Amino acid sequence: MTVAGAQEQIGRIVQQVARAEGGTPCATLIGTPHRAGPQSAALANGTAAHALDYDDSSFWMIGHPSAPVVAAVLALAELRGLDGEELVVALVAGYEVAARVGLACGQEHYLAGWHATGTVGTFAAAAAAGRAIGLDAAAMEQALGLAATQAAGLKVSFGTMAKPLHAGRAAAAGVLSALLAEQGLTAARGAIEAEQGFAATQAPGFDHRRPDREMGERLGIESVLFKKHACCGGTHGSISALRHLVGDRSFAASDVRRVRVRVSRQMLDICAVAEPVSGTEGKFSLRHVASLVLAGRSTGPTGFTDAAVRDADLLALRGRVEVADSGRATGHDTEVTLWLADGDAMTAQSDARIAAADDELALEWTALCDKFGELVGPVLGATATAGLVACVAGVGRGSSPTDLLALTRPTAVAR
Amino acid sequence: MTVAGAQEQIGRIVQQVARAEGGTPCATLIGTPHRAGPQSAALANGTAAHALDYDDSSFWMIGHPSAPVVAAVLALAELRGLDGEELVVALVAGYEVAARVGLACGQEHYLAGWHATGTVGTFAAAAAAGRAIGLDAAAMEQALGLAATQAAGLKVSFGTMAKPLHAGRAAAAGVLSALLAEQGLTAARGAIEAEQGFAATQAPGFDHRRPDREMGERLGIESVLFKKHACCGGTHGSISALRHLVGDRSFAASDVRRVRVRVSRQMLDICAVAEPVSGTEGKFSLRHVASLVLAGRSTGPTGFTDAAVRDADLLALRGRVEVADSGRATGHDTEVTLWLADGDAMTAQSDARIAAADDELALEWTALCDKFGELVGPVLGATATAGLVACVAGVGRGSSPTDLLALTRPTAVAR
Repeated sequence: MTVAGAQEQIGRIVQQVARAEGGTPCATLIGTPHRAGPQSAALANGTAAHALDYDDSSFWMIGHPSAPVVAAVLALAELRGLDGEELVVALVAGYEVAARVGLACGQEHYLAGWHATGTVGTFAAAAAAGRAIGLDAAAMEQALGLAATQAAGLKVSFGTMAKPLHAGRAAAAGVLSALLAEQGLTAARGAIEAEQGFAATQAPGFDHRRPDREMGERLGIESVLFKKHACCGGTHGSISALRHLVGDRSFAASDVRRVRVRVSRQMLDICAVAEPVSGTEGKFSLRHVASLVLAGRSTGPTGFTDAAVRDADLLALRGRVEVADSGRATGHDTEVTLWLADGDAMTAQSDARIAAADDELALEWTALCDKFGELVGPVLGATATAGLVACVAGVGRGSSPTDLLALTRPTAVAR
Repeated sequence: MTVAGAQEQIGRIVQQVARAEGGTPCATLIGTPHRAGPQSAALANGTAAHALDYDDSSFWMIGHPSAPVVAAVLALAELRGLDGEELVVALVAGYEVAARVGLACGQEHYLAGWHATGTVGTFAAAAAAGRAIGLDAAAMEQALGLAATQAAGLKVSFGTMAKPLHAGRAAAAGVLSALLAEQGLTAARGAIEAEQGFAATQAPGFDHRRPDREMGERLGIESVLFKKHACCGGTHGSISALRHLVGDRSFAASDVRRVRVRVSRQMLDICAVAEPVSGTEGKFSLRHVASLVLAGRSTGPTGFTDAAVRDADLLALRGRVEVADSGRATGHDTEVTLWLADGDAMTAQSDARIAAADDELALEWTALCDKFGELVGPVLGATATAGLVACVAGVGRGSSPTDLLALTRPTAVAR
């Protein structure tokens, strides 16, 4: 059967892509000295990008767009010699599809058990990869049809290593879809909306008009929010509100009478682990997160180690924090009230979904560079990290994706 | 983000698997002179196995088990130096999981829009690959958890090249799941039955007791039926019934007054294309299939070319065939009635789901060897094909998987 099928057009197309995967390794495994084939690099880099659960998110996608989109495009950048402008255009295409498919699927897709980073991320990665290799509209439709029939990723994997793997798998499936469509492999047309297509099987509240309604003139990439805290996005509004109240101070348990964090039932489902026992669980614990802010500690990766969630000072503070139902079914808006031991009481609200305004972009860049330095500095060294930031800033204005990827490889000196 | 994540355990595991994929090509692309990495070979071989839609099926799985299972195991056979017995045990494990997960999911999984060859096939391929590399029970559970979060494949892809791709993708995802689990990558426990797990998201009629109830003491591999006709399995009962009536004769349209084929509404949905215009559509047309049998023509691949569905004699016969609703919602049982021009009328029933009895196995082997020769002979040549049959017959009794795979490579002489 296989011997005969191997002579068919479909057989030959897949062999060609499979052989290229095993040929000369052409795609950098970011943060390592190694290279691999394009799908393998997309898998490894997309997974690594989401490994710390500290990458950006889009409230239109209801997921993490950059991990699958950037990994898919970079996996093809060296092989196809993309220039900086082509890289940027491909990325924008990926974010656009992430936002539009994500919005069309809506909350119900997530509530049904799907992790949009894996599912919607496959479409976004396919669009980004397809744009990177210059697919025409007909081939792009085939690539998206191949994405539809490969889209996967279950929320049941949250709290395990399979969660970041979703991002890598979406990136790899997107690259595969684009490369197969380029060779003429056919897929269903309209595979998202068709009877028994992606929407019918995975997105019970699908509405193809919702993206235009919600986005107006805005581009998908405008929905991307950078994570300022190394924990579940559902806790970020509460961190922001509590920070307003705490300011530059740091409190011990004896300073605090009581803290109340009120969030929607959706957030209670996602990030209300009452007594976290591991760093990973701490990322999904509003009580632990509040204790970090009260103590004036970092909400970066050091706040979410196994040791941090067992720290005696933090445990004592955590004992003063209660998490309450705001009465709303869904939403990221939060209200935090702080009663101090001296009798003062204060309240703040926040909604973490609000993106930076145009006049805040310079501040945002500085904050991002700081975060980048904190994460990448220890791996590449300070000098190489600064060089990488300059190269990223220059993409589309001179620096090439190949240069950029070369700078992500640790050298013996830096290690 | 990616640079930092690449240093995490999850990052390192995926890099290792990605690099091995791009290392020395170690897995034969069957029916070609080439090799590739294990996931790529699984993708190519699984796709090729299902490319002609002429591979075996399991009515317990409600899909095609061998394409994903055999491709997954063979992709690892050379790399891990499996002997014949290990190969057979891994295959049996794959068929067992295909049957048990398929039965537990039931008809509703298929009716909801999923192609079990892709979805259930991912579990089957993971189990087979996991057994091939000797995973223990804990690692096997992780591999199946990784399969759950990667399972995909939509029926909307039927009639396109994306359908055979489902089998290849299931094989590749199974291999990836097993290799990652071997390295310690974690996944959700009980990912099939868990809240928001595979069953909750993809199999509305899931019943974990159904496999024991239906299978009794039988093994999953006992549900495998070899396709004797190169067309949709839903037409096979009708072919069998009509052959009983036609016998060794061949009819022209003038010999036949009328033929009525009565099938369930499920079959009407799947294989009742009234006027097929391509060979691929002909595979899903009970009217075309009946015309082949009436004319005494082959129901092998030659019956399903674009030319065959436009053949004037077959078109004339097709005009005498009517397809009718049996009144049953589901099922493969069929009733065919033939009225000849001379006034004779006769009726036959058949159910293609009935597997060969033990005393029919020798006949089944002969029929399979004939089919194998018809498909593989033109690619490898008669001598090499006979050698391959002997090698397959000797697996588990001396011949090694590596020998077997070497024999699937066409040589210049054979071409």
